[in-house]
Amino acid sequence: MQMIDLIQKKKHGLSLSGEEIDFLVQGVTEGSLPDYQVSALLMAVLLKGMEDEETAALTRAMAESGGSIDLSEFGALSVDKHSTGGVGDKTTLILAPLVAACGAKVAKMSGRGLGHTGGTVDKLESIPGYRTEISEKEFMDIARKVGVCVIGQSGELAPADKKLYALRDVTGTVDSIPLIVSSIMSKKIAAGARSIVLDVTVGSGAFMKTVEDAKVLAEKMVTIGRACGRNMTALITDMNEPLGHAVGNALEVKEALAVLKGQLEGDLKEVSLALAGEMLALSLSMSPEAGLALARETLESGAAYEKMKEWIQAQGGDVRYLEEPERFPVAACSLDVLATRSGYISAMDAEAIGQAACRLGAGRRTKADSIQMAAGIMLCAKIGDRVENGDVLATLYTEQAESLEEAARMYQEALSFSDEAVPHPPLIHGVIR
Amino acid sequence: MQMIDLIQKKKHGLSLSGEEIDFLVQGVTEGSLPDYQVSALLMAVLLKGMEDEETAALTRAMAESGGSIDLSEFGALSVDKHSTGGVGDKTTLILAPLVAACGAKVAKMSGRGLGHTGGTVDKLESIPGYRTEISEKEFMDIARKVGVCVIGQSGELAPADKKLYALRDVTGTVDSIPLIVSSIMSKKIAAGARSIVLDVTVGSGAFMKTVEDAKVLAEKMVTIGRACGRNMTALITDMNEPLGHAVGNALEVKEALAVLKGQLEGDLKEVSLALAGEMLALSLSMSPEAGLALARETLESGAAYEKMKEWIQAQGGDVRYLEEPERFPVAACSLDVLATRSGYISAMDAEAIGQAACRLGAGRRTKADSIQMAAGIMLCAKIGDRVENGDVLATLYTEQAESLEEAARMYQEALSFSDEAVPHPPLIHGVIR
Repeated sequence: MQMIDLIQKKKHGLSLSGEEIDFLVQGVTEGSLPDYQVSALLMAVLLKGMEDEETAALTRAMAESGGSIDLSEFGALSVDKHSTGGVGDKTTLILAPLVAACGAKVAKMSGRGLGHTGGTVDKLESIPGYRTEISEKEFMDIARKVGVCVIGQSGELAPADKKLYALRDVTGTVDSIPLIVSSIMSKKIAAGARSIVLDVTVGSGAFMKTVEDAKVLAEKMVTIGRACGRNMTALITDMNEPLGHAVGNALEVKEALAVLKGQLEGDLKEVSLALAGEMLALSLSMSPEAGLALARETLESGAAYEKMKEWIQAQGGDVRYLEEPERFPVAACSLDVLATRSGYISAMDAEAIGQAACRLGAGRRTKADSIQMAAGIMLCAKIGDRVENGDVLATLYTEQAESLEEAARMYQEALSFSDEAVPHPPLIHGVIR
Repeated sequence: MQMIDLIQKKKHGLSLSGEEIDFLVQGVTEGSLPDYQVSALLMAVLLKGMEDEETAALTRAMAESGGSIDLSEFGALSVDKHSTGGVGDKTTLILAPLVAACGAKVAKMSGRGLGHTGGTVDKLESIPGYRTEISEKEFMDIARKVGVCVIGQSGELAPADKKLYALRDVTGTVDSIPLIVSSIMSKKIAAGARSIVLDVTVGSGAFMKTVEDAKVLAEKMVTIGRACGRNMTALITDMNEPLGHAVGNALEVKEALAVLKGQLEGDLKEVSLALAGEMLALSLSMSPEAGLALARETLESGAAYEKMKEWIQAQGGDVRYLEEPERFPVAACSLDVLATRSGYISAMDAEAIGQAACRLGAGRRTKADSIQMAAGIMLCAKIGDRVENGDVLATLYTEQAESLEEAARMYQEALSFSDEAVPHPPLIHGVIR
């Protein structure tokens, strides 16, 4: 088999066979194919597309290019959630113990964040003692006993995807639906859960900017996941403003705890319940309505919070931090960002707010950077809220006083105002079951 | 400037600016751009195209990426002919002395052939003593005095094209009109002639298989050549069968001599006259009709043959070989290919006939191969000719007896027959002035 023949086929809009895709993925994994041929093929895929069958074959081949997690003993009970990315997105901290409290199994390897804030593992590490590196045996034991275990990635799931992504990043071939879908889904397939709920975000803080684009991506991921034998549902959720009011690692853990303790209503709680409801529907084989009702009941009964404590304790975390969140260290410096006019907040550039949080120390710019756990932003007003001149729009937290001014300017510029009343954005734009 | 931005623009079908194309060509020439980015851009160009302005800028930048030949002292008199490739194509040997005999200047660096037969320089080297490597001063002196000089390529014209072509060859990005046009025209522009006649071949032995495709390519080359300040004409000529009856280096020189001496009528003479007429029209500023009449008169008067002798002598060749072509060595082995049925020849796969000649030793498979000057094929029947069972279709010549059988089989398979009379194919399919 010759790589040039694969390029010629795809260039003419023809489909690659399963054998050809296996040849490609094996060559990429081994490093035996020259980058210049792979990048030419990637551009042809971007411009000519892939049939679902090809995308599924690519997904499977990449999923099998390295190790994988065997969760088969849990059957359909093993359930995972994947978000396409957002700002202030801490739903995993809520829904993981919530669905585990209902009997589902959330056994998850989670990456570290690169970008505006840390990943789920970074957020969990703000709880002193929490161990993200444990043996596979202990990982499975905790999953069996507690129902939820979240650790950092050891080894590498879908190494072919990592290599392909590095090449896509420098050759302008990131924004291809089949390549995005196979990249995301290959890692999810290798991660082992039988049931997968996708949180496809849309808006100023998301990769997808329009609901139409998000739906195309969501439908394709659901199709490909099913072709790989998984139970799939996707929610299209809004990311035109940060989710909840906290952006930054420890700040987000505290906000998630408030939801789990029944102290906080609003968008974060509702989106978490919607996702958890779909996870329960898939993993416990119930209707989405029944799943949502069970999720709400379990959250509001306090059972999800109890499961959170059980989980954190099992992984070595100091549960006193959950019981008394005021134990979390507060950043040395803070600054209130004040409104310079009166009016309704009409739009927020959530991506820019994420970048402001990163500037304050909440995120990594490169893998080598360290994260300031207490750094971040607490939002006081979101889209549709009325503010008066001089009101506090947000409070910035950082260990580096010199970053406050720039972050405040970034935050101000991320907001748009209107004299007319503006509705709050919808939380859920669609569901694909 | 960032290469990734050029890729993104082209991927979205936008035009690259002159500065961006200069950046690209400079980076390719210097080797400072990674191949994987260049190949991604090439695929985007292939699938999204280029505006004429971009193609002209690419052509100019590649023409200027290395040395060039300064023929400006000859003004419009300096004229060149370029063929997109064919089998049995020895028109240069006829039209170069022909137009020089009329006062035009043909000062040409010509490449060595890679493929079914040698290039023009290889064919000329079958004349003992002919020097293809001479100093630039002598090259220009002969051009001034004799009006025609053809040497091998020393140094490198348009080195950026060489590097780009090597990458296109392995990334499936050869068949892009803007890339083909800029590749051909950059070398022609660097070669210095003010007037250029293109011989765009079409048919079974040509890169372009349909007249429509050939016209698109021809029109684009004329447009781009004019944008680079050259006088341009293109002829679309037929290559559904070899041109003339000889395929192979010394065999082709002898056939060209027969035309120059007025001993041979037919397609080779007519196509050579058509091309020469257009060359004279451009270089001597006359109508195409007057150019053709002058070419015919000059050929039939014997003046072109006299110029051929003058030229070959100036470059050190033994003119006795021109006067007595029987001096050319004959190959040690030969074989007649016989018709196995009666009928009219309805089609010839000229490319396959070229490959049969290559098998006999007439061409190079790799740059390191040497050419057998006497090897090749003499055709006895072409499209439209009636043959009877047992008639000689062609005679094969080689130094390697073991190649005869396979070459004979290849030749047989290259021919199709019909019981109905078949017209001779037209010689010229169109002209773009």
